[in-house]
Amino acid sequence: MENIPEQPADDDVRRWLTERRNWGRWGEDDQRGAFNLTTPQTVVAAARLVQTGVRVSLARPLPTEPGPSNPFPVIHTMRVHDHGRPNGSGESGDTVTATWHGPLMTHIDALCHVWDANGMWNGRDPQVEIGIGGSRWGGIEHWREGFISRGLLLDIPGHRNEPYVTQDRPVHGSELIEVAAASGLEPRPGDAIVVYSGQAAYECEQGPMRAELRPGLHASCMPVLREWDCSMLLWDMQDLTPSGFASATWSVHGVIYAYGIALVDCVVLEPLVEQSRRHDRNEFMLVVLPLYIEGGTGSAVNPVAVF
Amino acid sequence: MENIPEQPADDDVRRWLTERRNWGRWGEDDQRGAFNLTTPQTVVAAARLVQTGVRVSLARPLPTEPGPSNPFPVIHTMRVHDHGRPNGSGESGDTVTATWHGPLMTHIDALCHVWDANGMWNGRDPQVEIGIGGSRWGGIEHWREGFISRGLLLDIPGHRNEPYVTQDRPVHGSELIEVAAASGLEPRPGDAIVVYSGQAAYECEQGPMRAELRPGLHASCMPVLREWDCSMLLWDMQDLTPSGFASATWSVHGVIYAYGIALVDCVVLEPLVEQSRRHDRNEFMLVVLPLYIEGGTGSAVNPVAVF
Amino acid sequence: MENIPEQPADDDVRRWLTERRNWGRWGEDDQRGAFNLTTPQTVVAAARLVQTGVRVSLARPLPTEPGPSNPFPVIHTMRVHDHGRPNGSGESGDTVTATWHGPLMTHIDALCHVWDANGMWNGRDPQVEIGIGGSRWGGIEHWREGFISRGLLLDIPGHRNEPYVTQDRPVHGSELIEVAAASGLEPRPGDAIVVYSGQAAYECEQGPMRAELRPGLHASCMPVLREWDCSMLLWDMQDLTPSGFASATWSVHGVIYAYGIALVDCVVLEPLVEQSRRHDRNEFMLVVLPLYIEGGTGSAVNPVAVF
Amino acid sequence: MENIPEQPADDDVRRWLTERRNWGRWGEDDQRGAFNLTTPQTVVAAARLVQTGVRVSLARPLPTEPGPSNPFPVIHTMRVHDHGRPNGSGESGDTVTATWHGPLMTHIDALCHVWDANGMWNGRDPQVEIGIGGSRWGGIEHWREGFISRGLLLDIPGHRNEPYVTQDRPVHGSELIEVAAASGLEPRPGDAIVVYSGQAAYECEQGPMRAELRPGLHASCMPVLREWDCSMLLWDMQDLTPSGFASATWSVHGVIYAYGIALVDCVVLEPLVEQSRRHDRNEFMLVVLPLYIEGGTGSAVNPVAVF
Repeated sequence: MENIPEQPADDDVRRWLTERRNWGRWGEDDQRGAFNLTTPQTVVAAARLVQTGVRVSLARPLPTEPGPSNPFPVIHTMRVHDHGRPNGSGESGDTVTATWHGPLMTHIDALCHVWDANGMWNGRDPQVEIGIGGSRWGGIEHWREGFISRGLLLDIPGHRNEPYVTQDRPVHGSELIEVAAASGLEPRPGDAIVVYSGQAAYECEQGPMRAELRPGLHASCMPVLREWDCSMLLWDMQDLTPSGFASATWSVHGVIYAYGIALVDCVVLEPLVEQSRRHDRNEFMLVVLPLYIEGGTGSAVNPVAVF
Repeated sequence: MENIPEQPADDDVRRWLTERRNWGRWGEDDQRGAFNLTTPQTVVAAARLVQTGVRVSLARPLPTEPGPSNPFPVIHTMRVHDHGRPNGSGESGDTVTATWHGPLMTHIDALCHVWDANGMWNGRDPQVEIGIGGSRWGGIEHWREGFISRGLLLDIPGHRNEPYVTQDRPVHGSELIEVAAASGLEPRPGDAIVVYSGQAAYECEQGPMRAELRPGLHASCMPVLREWDCSMLLWDMQDLTPSGFASATWSVHGVIYAYGIALVDCVVLEPLVEQSRRHDRNEFMLVVLPLYIEGGTGSAVNPVAVF
Repeated sequence: MENIPEQPADDDVRRWLTERRNWGRWGEDDQRGAFNLTTPQTVVAAARLVQTGVRVSLARPLPTEPGPSNPFPVIHTMRVHDHGRPNGSGESGDTVTATWHGPLMTHIDALCHVWDANGMWNGRDPQVEIGIGGSRWGGIEHWREGFISRGLLLDIPGHRNEPYVTQDRPVHGSELIEVAAASGLEPRPGDAIVVYSGQAAYECEQGPMRAELRPGLHASCMPVLREWDCSMLLWDMQDLTPSGFASATWSVHGVIYAYGIALVDCVVLEPLVEQSRRHDRNEFMLVVLPLYIEGGTGSAVNPVAVF
Repeated sequence: MENIPEQPADDDVRRWLTERRNWGRWGEDDQRGAFNLTTPQTVVAAARLVQTGVRVSLARPLPTEPGPSNPFPVIHTMRVHDHGRPNGSGESGDTVTATWHGPLMTHIDALCHVWDANGMWNGRDPQVEIGIGGSRWGGIEHWREGFISRGLLLDIPGHRNEPYVTQDRPVHGSELIEVAAASGLEPRPGDAIVVYSGQAAYECEQGPMRAELRPGLHASCMPVLREWDCSMLLWDMQDLTPSGFASATWSVHGVIYAYGIALVDCVVLEPLVEQSRRHDRNEFMLVVLPLYIEGGTGSAVNPVAVF
């Protein structure tokens, strides 16, 4: 791996978003990005990791309570039909109105979710591709076979021996490498990287996390994720915000369009970490099955880890 | 197994819904039903079935086109924010309004979805349990660890050597047994039973399936599913409609509240059948991960089979 | 008025949509169209028509039942908050998801609702003007001061002495003139023309009206509406469908973009007609107040006539 | 009128909510409340007030921006159909998901919107009346003929010669009487009372109004509104919050269920006040036309004043 500068500058961030980007790697018309790295072989290998059969869901409940950190609450409503049917039969149904990508709903970002002046994934133009009916490029439907991958847990607070990551000491790329090594993990192409930053403990002490002030992953994580060639990143705290780089709206979120990596935002990791620490296991089968939404920019998901 | 009458009467259907029902089997307060049969051991066994790593999605795209068979079309809409951000950054997001349980959306039914005069799952009263904010009993959130099960494909048209099941010759319970035996399958507790009836070929010849006239599974399948002790049933044609029993609104759907079995309606099975026939394999790992919706009556899902 | 041919041809329809169109009449940047004809003077004149104070609503209930003629049913759902408040206080609220412009919801069409190859109202390009967040041209917000107009009822079945208009004998422009004259009505600029075709009686005998086969107003009504210089047309049966003109998707709906006239579709006119016949009055104050939706293509409305 | 205590106690508030309440006044089955006071005579009288024909809308745009004071933003989305039609024809449509009763949407409250331990309007039990599909009592559909009333503007800042009402000096009932008298207004049964408190100026200086801290109308306004026998109250600042009474969740909002008065929340009054001050006129015709929503707890509206 290249040397990651201790104090990267704006130019480094721009370089990370362009120099090693994966555009064209799977063809100019590719709309699956790093999902291509989840080959049948990696699926088999992931399944081989299942030993005890213990399942852990990483999902939050769909967030129906409005609040400053939930600008578009899910609207969940009920219907009942129980009149005039034989034998007292009845049925209930629900309607769900859900808006992603807010900071309280566990969801996956499709390749069309973000871009910068250089374009969307593989260099496409959002002005051309994104329309009223959905995106014609990089929609979530291209991942409908689902991610079934080796999941690697990087437990930052466990490594630091602190309850949570703080604003003044975000997770740098070098620390990802350090924690992986200390955990005996060797990332391979197609892996799902799960970075735990301690959100529950943070919110317990600091109150609800705010969208505009958030510890998390520093932009220098980008070249590491690229080097590891992972297919997916799951995280509880997301990008360090503000990023510290004047010209970067996206720091780590840039891996979506630059490298084609799937992000799963807003996962709940405490139960996974507990299971991991108890059994001293940091790898597992991870399953993320996006809904099949044509032209969708993402999907609410219920990621499940299996030990 | 009990002897299933060739020409069952109304009373037989009622008996199947009550005599061997699973109420109390996992305690009076149990809200997971046959999901309890997916133990860590069955999860491990399911993972062991993964051999080639080939994944097949059983989901239809979210149905946005209105029509006679889609009374509540999904409303899928886009937002874009791309003004005034550094470096030409932009993002897109979607809002999805989805209503289940219609006949065009691939979805799972929770235990609170249907009932009859005897009550909901485990004997609860829908008048008490189902409220404006959701169901207080048997909601989909109780299955959020996800179904990771051995899937068994029963290929009815393949067995009959006909393109699809017809209205005048629905799938009886005895045929399920026959097809399983002929395929060398021995159902075990916790399995996910996948019954293929040939919907695509049917619709190709007969036009879109109508909710009120539908070939599919005859009520006599109920005691078989109970005997097999499966956790889940996935099917492309659902219950034979009309059921042929004056007093039964639900025929096979009754396994939800009587036995606690999860139904996954409206799956697309042709790609699975093709895979199965080509490799002569009728068992695989099947993964269904419902969204985490508190008090929800079900969830849109993307079921994935892994060979 | 020009001579309206008995058997108009495609070219006549095209001519009506272009020759006397109102583009530029109120300036090139005008987004209000024939709403400009509802001057303070016409408002005063409309108010002067109020004599008995009897109000008649022309709205249907928001259509929540799905069906062939209601492809996007309104989703109407409830919330209740009644816990933990002093004095047993509680409150209820609703969420409404409404999609216009379906054939069962009483709604007004904004100027941006339809167009043809010549463009939208005043010649604008829909590709440029209509975006994800709404229309930048001719949105419903430009009519937020509301239509308060003289309403003129043209009672076609009353004139014909038949229960309803039939498919083989639609309402021609010449008949509008005839009925107005027979009723002693002299249309003036800014008027709201209300054309009753007898929908309830039609549906009583023929079953629910189908979108693709509908008696109603013939394309030859267009030049009459233009000549009368009305601001608004309210109707129960809408355009004759099929229009009889191969190249016209829109026949009378074309008055929206050609003349800037507001259409109010799907009104219920029987109570108005009854009131009118009983008191032998065909003119009244008519009030239509669209919701203030920026960039909206229309609005559900509750039009009220006051005698 | 009774003597209103300068420093009312909890007991006074409770007394105002019960002693003179209108339950039974129009029959035990009445679901229209003070709307009954808008008789044909008052409609005629209201229309007679129209002199210049100038219309002023009191509506805010539907609030689509999420924020602390907009917990359920309106979701407004577009569709376009423009393919494969003759003559380049196309159409656009919108879907609106709107949740009332938030503090940023101009809306009317139906009689079923609020209650306390004594019950809903006319003494009904919310547990019985409010269901999943809507309210069976006091729904907005009972007002579908629309309010066409004499509107009286009480311009509090104008009277005080201050820019806006402040938290420490809310509007007392005695001040309503004072301002009416000073403006030469004599309230009559059925009137629509419009109380201006200066929201725009307040927010200009103090920032966006917060739901939990709001100057506005003191509970002592209730007996005055009852005495005046108005049908409707429109206001920009709503109830003083906190109310200052430990046991009152609702203070002035209690007029809904106690007296049957319609509230129109979140109106924009500056343009009306400007018009009023310029022409020295405080009375006008006021039109509020709720959408026809069966069982609805209210409706977004576009109130229009006509001078």
